[in-house]
Amino acid sequence: MTVAVIGSLQRMGRWAPDARGRLQQAAMELYTERGYDRTTTADIAERAGLSERTYFRHFADKREVLFDSTGRLEQLVVAGVRDAPADAAPLTAVAAGLDDGAQLLDSFGDDARARAAVVGGHPELAERELAKLSAMARAVGEVLRERGVPDPAAALTAEAGVAVFRVAFEQWAVAPGRPPFPAVLTAALAELRTAVAGG
Amino acid sequence: MTVAVIGSLQRMGRWAPDARGRLQQAAMELYTERGYDRTTTADIAERAGLSERTYFRHFADKREVLFDSTGRLEQLVVAGVRDAPADAAPLTAVAAGLDDGAQLLDSFGDDARARAAVVGGHPELAERELAKLSAMARAVGEVLRERGVPDPAAALTAEAGVAVFRVAFEQWAVAPGRPPFPAVLTAALAELRTAVAGG
Repeated sequence: MTVAVIGSLQRMGRWAPDARGRLQQAAMELYTERGYDRTTTADIAERAGLSERTYFRHFADKREVLFDSTGRLEQLVVAGVRDAPADAAPLTAVAAGLDDGAQLLDSFGDDARARAAVVGGHPELAERELAKLSAMARAVGEVLRERGVPDPAAALTAEAGVAVFRVAFEQWAVAPGRPPFPAVLTAALAELRTAVAGG
Repeated sequence: MTVAVIGSLQRMGRWAPDARGRLQQAAMELYTERGYDRTTTADIAERAGLSERTYFRHFADKREVLFDSTGRLEQLVVAGVRDAPADAAPLTAVAAGLDDGAQLLDSFGDDARARAAVVGGHPELAERELAKLSAMARAVGEVLRERGVPDPAAALTAEAGVAVFRVAFEQWAVAPGRPPFPAVLTAALAELRTAVAGG
């Protein structure tokens, strides 16, 4: 993926100045300050200077407000797998897509780390995150099938790849010294290869 | 795991004749007949001939009633990994634990398939299932650490193993001809090795 594309995704902004972005920023602030359980959608709307009705025009429930970035992550990863060279092995194609995703999250920097802390800190949010990543794995599996990879190899490669991405993300989010996420991901994929070859 | 242990787990019963078992059976019936959205915890209690209060003494919410088997699955898988030969490679140890789990689910037969259809048919249930399997992966990773496997290899091997288990389970649940689940799992693990080696 080009730097320009990542740049434009960043400018779309996690916290854009429109209603949606203000609601996202307000939710992150309140979930961090008071915790998820002690925050209502009315609180979020009030902090953003908007009505609760506006909240529900943008987000289906109290959780979705934190998951816009996951949708963009999926689009990028899927496009990256689709655009990998036609002769790339399935896991290599998946790794290319995941690397694009890692660049995006890395570009969010401390915002991504703060969000990870909030999401990991509440079971309902963690559950939703798993569901989103599972949907991403399914989408990646579908692209592998389009590339001619049969099942169950397509599903297995997609699920294993996304599992590695999740572990690498959790490592990165708490790693001291802020290593670049793509490097953490590449190391994790190499570890998986070693573990599978050795076992 | 011995056949005797699996037998005693089966006798504990998915649908034991006690209150808990009756609630589980009633929930499965109603979720199948009417769907999850059109069933209340009061409906489940009524079908089981019990009060809604009794329901909530046994289960925290409308979803948990379907997840007892997942808790037992985790216990078995974790024990299987722990009991693998000390010199077994990490993925081999994980595969041994997962095979024990596969034997358990296989012993549930059509009950396990019916439950998979209900769980897969509603996003809220599918989300909870993912959370349970994620907890199982964390527990397996913890046992690998006890066995001396360092991170991130422990987390990666556990997550990749459980991802394979999930894909194999989904395959098995809808496979014509009712193949044994352990065989489907073994084939899926072999596919993962091929995919990782080739990519």
